[in-house]
Amino acid sequence: MLILLDQDGVLADFELGFHNAWQTKMGHKHPALSPAERRAFYVRDDYPKEFREEVEEIYTASGFFRDLPAISGAMEAVRHLLTLGHDVRICTSPLNQYRNCVPEKYEWVERHLGPDFVHRMIVTKDKTVVHGDVLVDDKPVITGTRHPNWKHVLFDQPYNRHVDGLRMTWETWRNALMVDESRSQGTDSKTS
Amino acid sequence: MLILLDQDGVLADFELGFHNAWQTKMGHKHPALSPAERRAFYVRDDYPKEFREEVEEIYTASGFFRDLPAISGAMEAVRHLLTLGHDVRICTSPLNQYRNCVPEKYEWVERHLGPDFVHRMIVTKDKTVVHGDVLVDDKPVITGTRHPNWKHVLFDQPYNRHVDGLRMTWETWRNALMVDESRSQGTDSKTS
Repeated sequence: MLILLDQDGVLADFELGFHNAWQTKMGHKHPALSPAERRAFYVRDDYPKEFREEVEEIYTASGFFRDLPAISGAMEAVRHLLTLGHDVRICTSPLNQYRNCVPEKYEWVERHLGPDFVHRMIVTKDKTVVHGDVLVDDKPVITGTRHPNWKHVLFDQPYNRHVDGLRMTWETWRNALMVDESRSQGTDSKTS
Repeated sequence: MLILLDQDGVLADFELGFHNAWQTKMGHKHPALSPAERRAFYVRDDYPKEFREEVEEIYTASGFFRDLPAISGAMEAVRHLLTLGHDVRICTSPLNQYRNCVPEKYEWVERHLGPDFVHRMIVTKDKTVVHGDVLVDDKPVITGTRHPNWKHVLFDQPYNRHVDGLRMTWETWRNALMVDESRSQGTDSKTS
């Protein structure tokens, strides 16, 4: 399978990174929403309108994307998918304010998955033009110019629970992706 | 048509930019090859091996990609393709040394084609995973994991003349892309 994985909210913990940065820089003016309290896909829509500029300042700041923590279990699952023989790519949309975001997405992947994995990155605003069997993405609905040939598997987040459909976490990915582990098990049994 | 355009060597004049930068910084040690003398796809392969590090220093330097001149006629042709109703995207592979290259490719597009065109960028090492009817690219042979569904139209450059197949420049693109101009002509005639 050609498996496309979104980066922020699936591999990189944008929510935790934002929460911590807001609490440090702005917590004295307005408390940070905990990741569990988030309801809108775009974090700016979950804070009062008068803080819009401050919200954007946080996620466009130098180092924000580079220093995001990895979502628990994600790196291990990605490596597991590769050992199962799947073709795994990162398919990510940059911010309109691309100057820090885009190169730091590359740095993040290099740091967490190694320099070879950087070659697996596809950076595009329109994910419907990318081939794949599956796209794992936390965005509730993914639109673009084409009818995509991938199946959208929703990566479970508090802000997408109003959407029906197949969903997964890095605890439940084996069932959601219907990954056949017999191949690697077969290999194991031959060597045991 | 969904038309994918490579960036360097098709829209941005990497060859002229490299020639000028080499002549300024290294011309006293080894004369720059003129763009017409280039024979290898990768510029480093056209310079003596002892200069490999200096070649890489030039195209990985801050500002190199950002300041590349536009290839003559390219910007006008891109805008014309849009007015004809085609869906035009930039499909570009970053250097392994991505730190300056990737954000500066975005800056280049913003500067030469405007901020909205930045949304049309697809940055990927593997262009075969991207949908399209046509890919205009100066690279002689484009490989990847899939059999692509686009047709490769070679953008004519001195270093790809050994390859057979459909080729174009920004003087000959109308014939090569078999673009039907009747649509815009029809619109014109209605308003005339």
